[in-house]
Amino acid sequence: MKDLLIREVLARGQELEGKEVEACGWVHRIRDLGALRFLVLRDKSGTLQAVFKRGETPQEVLSRALELREESVVCVKGSLRRAPTREGYEISARDLRLLSAPVEPLPLEVPDSPKATLPTRLKYRWLDVRNPKVSAIFKLKGWIAGKFREHFSSLQFTEIFTPKIVATGTESGADVFPVLYFGKTVYLAQSPQFYKQMAVIAGLERVFEVGPVFRAEPHHTVRHLNEYHSLDIEVGFIESYNDVMDLVEGFFRRLAQDLHEVRELLEEHGAEPLQVPERVPRLTMRQAYEVLAEYGKRVQYGEDLDPEGERLLGSYARERYKSDLIFVTEYPWKVRPFYTMRKEEEPAWTYGFDLLMRGLEVVTGGQREHRYERLRQNLREKGLREEDFSFYLEFFKHGAPPHGGAGMGLERITMQMLGLQNIREARLLPRDTERVTP
Amino acid sequence: MKDLLIREVLARGQELEGKEVEACGWVHRIRDLGALRFLVLRDKSGTLQAVFKRGETPQEVLSRALELREESVVCVKGSLRRAPTREGYEISARDLRLLSAPVEPLPLEVPDSPKATLPTRLKYRWLDVRNPKVSAIFKLKGWIAGKFREHFSSLQFTEIFTPKIVATGTESGADVFPVLYFGKTVYLAQSPQFYKQMAVIAGLERVFEVGPVFRAEPHHTVRHLNEYHSLDIEVGFIESYNDVMDLVEGFFRRLAQDLHEVRELLEEHGAEPLQVPERVPRLTMRQAYEVLAEYGKRVQYGEDLDPEGERLLGSYARERYKSDLIFVTEYPWKVRPFYTMRKEEEPAWTYGFDLLMRGLEVVTGGQREHRYERLRQNLREKGLREEDFSFYLEFFKHGAPPHGGAGMGLERITMQMLGLQNIREARLLPRDTERVTP
Repeated sequence: MKDLLIREVLARGQELEGKEVEACGWVHRIRDLGALRFLVLRDKSGTLQAVFKRGETPQEVLSRALELREESVVCVKGSLRRAPTREGYEISARDLRLLSAPVEPLPLEVPDSPKATLPTRLKYRWLDVRNPKVSAIFKLKGWIAGKFREHFSSLQFTEIFTPKIVATGTESGADVFPVLYFGKTVYLAQSPQFYKQMAVIAGLERVFEVGPVFRAEPHHTVRHLNEYHSLDIEVGFIESYNDVMDLVEGFFRRLAQDLHEVRELLEEHGAEPLQVPERVPRLTMRQAYEVLAEYGKRVQYGEDLDPEGERLLGSYARERYKSDLIFVTEYPWKVRPFYTMRKEEEPAWTYGFDLLMRGLEVVTGGQREHRYERLRQNLREKGLREEDFSFYLEFFKHGAPPHGGAGMGLERITMQMLGLQNIREARLLPRDTERVTP
Repeated sequence: MKDLLIREVLARGQELEGKEVEACGWVHRIRDLGALRFLVLRDKSGTLQAVFKRGETPQEVLSRALELREESVVCVKGSLRRAPTREGYEISARDLRLLSAPVEPLPLEVPDSPKATLPTRLKYRWLDVRNPKVSAIFKLKGWIAGKFREHFSSLQFTEIFTPKIVATGTESGADVFPVLYFGKTVYLAQSPQFYKQMAVIAGLERVFEVGPVFRAEPHHTVRHLNEYHSLDIEVGFIESYNDVMDLVEGFFRRLAQDLHEVRELLEEHGAEPLQVPERVPRLTMRQAYEVLAEYGKRVQYGEDLDPEGERLLGSYARERYKSDLIFVTEYPWKVRPFYTMRKEEEPAWTYGFDLLMRGLEVVTGGQREHRYERLRQNLREKGLREEDFSFYLEFFKHGAPPHGGAGMGLERITMQMLGLQNIREARLLPRDTERVTP
């Protein structure tokens, strides 16, 4: 493995100045000036110019440097010196190792890749992601997942690993992908819902999971994927679903507070820091209808929000509370799954919530029904058959604490953090109705 | 959410002594002594005795306490006092809230669950895991995954999230589960192999992933699962596969060093600390054949190790090097997948390795072939059709650094760490040829 990434060389620039260093990476740009060749080297961490020049560089090395093409993989050795480059330093090249050269012309120019069409970018993703603006998306995504784990681990949550191969869909059996499994038909999990609840009931009490979820909805939108990663939490012994919202809010506050660690990634996209006020507004759905009415948008009483409604509530949160986040609470029973706990006094409404981030739903959560008989009743009222969910009902027969949780869309959070236009940009290799390769 | 877990109450025992505390959890054991009822409460973090006693406990509360059954979920309020219990404290109960009671007799006694048969335990997993010895497995597993991320993040690795829905199997197209995907047949990923390599080639350079992998092999062994979690790394700009082994070794050394953090989990299983010597032995496969011959075990030259061979090498490592770990290197080309780099001078052998932990393979890794023409040649020699892997070959056309990586079986590491007899014990909800529920 490399001794030093380019960023590490630059960070130690003063100490290494005048000394021999080696930088390995891809040839990002080439500029020729007579017998001078400037290569901009790019690695995971940054860029650094290498200068090949008669008199400084041995003739044989210079000749080989002149044959290099963009996106070749090389190691350049030479002395580090100050230079009027963006990085403040350059390498005066003495030696060059060619590790790999393109065998075909590049179908996508790496420095211009963000300007290409999305289908082209996704087709040549291994070139597209070499662009620092694009790799910033995936570095940020990894950072968010890391913060999620760190945050909930510090609150005594245990990471769990639930099956993705399941016998029944989470909600109604629709919108699941069938899998042929040793002669049986089973399904891909739409969410870890049932099993994270089981883990709480099994005494793990506070659990989280980071894993893929699979949705067979034939969407053609910029905000849906058929496979994405969900950040899930589930927690027992809650007093109400406000406990769950407090946990979600605490995580987003942590993200906002620590965002300075990845400032450069946000800057690649000209993205603003996340505004999280002292208390994130919590609006019941019925209050949301009224707010939307003020914005000239009518939503049928008892119905879900559409994308425009979410956007308008985002504007409201920003204008009224200077907040990038807003909870919508007490979702209608009609649009929530059977395992949601309903309000005792108003059973048409539930202890289910969504969190909108800059006008897009990024989290769904709520308190779950933990009472066996109520759960059976919920199933019946949803027109579902008890026998299809019998394995799930079993979990509630032997002592189940009140509990709740949330599922957060990792790609959606990444998208909203950076202001991306299409959720596919936040997925290394998106799967949609048309796309299963590369 | 609870103010304090039981462990947190106990940790602050001195400060809280004589004060009112509340402990919530499951009723682990009940002991009656005349008009005295002792309840042992159990939560995620530990146990604590609550005493219900005439004179101390209000009559109405005492009556309700006398009706409680095991595995009811309760909150007990009362003053904390010193007691000759294992925990050193108990609660003198003043109040009791019943949150949930079993609606049916328990099919599995929680304190005795490890003694039940594995099929019974897996059938009633939400009861089985309530046993502290069993939950210790899953807490340790989550801890290992956390260490993995922490360790590789600190080395500038980026976490990636690759698709589990793929158009082609990783190796030969056999042993994959077919998925019906919008009218097409696709497959579940056997490993993130192709995509973690792509991420390296895409300039992310150092990547890791924690995710499910799916193997359609109809195994009936105690060391195979059809769905498990793999800890994957892949890294560019390596000099040789020794760099990869150094990284793997560094991770296991870190595990061993930090294992004191989870000492109590190991103690539940009477497990020994992990022995990792200053340098983990690295034995070529040909040397391994000779060692095995000394142990009276003949392996056909050029063949893979079988479970007995692995066990014997485990004994050898322990006896000769006081090591729980041993690398076997230079695996035969015949038993390695096409993407493995072969030894230049001896193409029947590869830069592929396994790591055995206490006599069981827990990691497989190696240097990958990054040279486009060599890769095509490898495919041909394996009798595979280039067109089936054309999307993968594309990655290597535009500058691919030398790279390598490893996949580590999370359940196998957990199993070996604790000395479990069956890998199913280390999976919350194992999937095998017979089992897709709960």
